[in-house]
Amino acid sequence: MPVFEPYYAVIFTSARTTGDRGYKKMSELMLDLAEKQPGFLSVESAREEIGITVSYWKDLNSIANWKTQTDHLMAQERGIKEWYSWYKVRICRVEREYDFNKME
Amino acid sequence: MPVFEPYYAVIFTSARTTGDRGYKKMSELMLDLAEKQPGFLSVESAREEIGITVSYWKDLNSIANWKTQTDHLMAQERGIKEWYSWYKVRICRVEREYDFNKME
Repeated sequence: MPVFEPYYAVIFTSARTTGDRGYKKMSELMLDLAEKQPGFLSVESAREEIGITVSYWKDLNSIANWKTQTDHLMAQERGIKEWYSWYKVRICRVEREYDFNKME
Repeated sequence: MPVFEPYYAVIFTSARTTGDRGYKKMSELMLDLAEKQPGFLSVESAREEIGITVSYWKDLNSIANWKTQTDHLMAQERGIKEWYSWYKVRICRVEREYDFNKME
């Protein structure tokens, strides 16, 4: 088994305001943009009563760069003004993982 | 501002098999049971194409105890046999957090 290399997760939990207000389009744009950032690994997302988006990154530096990327900053500003009634961001170090797959 | 105390997150990402097969009832039971475990802090969950459940814990020991709790072990076994086509579990140390709330 290869040695596990710790990496980082950003857990973004949120509640939406009512109405789309350009949210869907922008979230697709941000996803495309995130995937192009250095150090980006993957992203997982689901929304019911609340939304949970977890993005995975190589290191803290990649996360810091993504947070201050210009277009992303604009989206964050619109997020606060228009799209979210609340959100919480947690920066985490992934220390261990395991998985199960019926197809394997 | 109070000093931030790191805590732990278990990110459980999964894809369901088709049909309920007793899943909904058991997931409610497991949620009730998790909340009673020592060191449990909170849980957040959403499912669309994939499901993401993040539970938060005081320390790694609390997570280890929950993983080996008898009823939870039985649920994990049924999870593999019946409910999930795949899942991935990541154990993470929450190192930083911030939030936004329109009501504050």
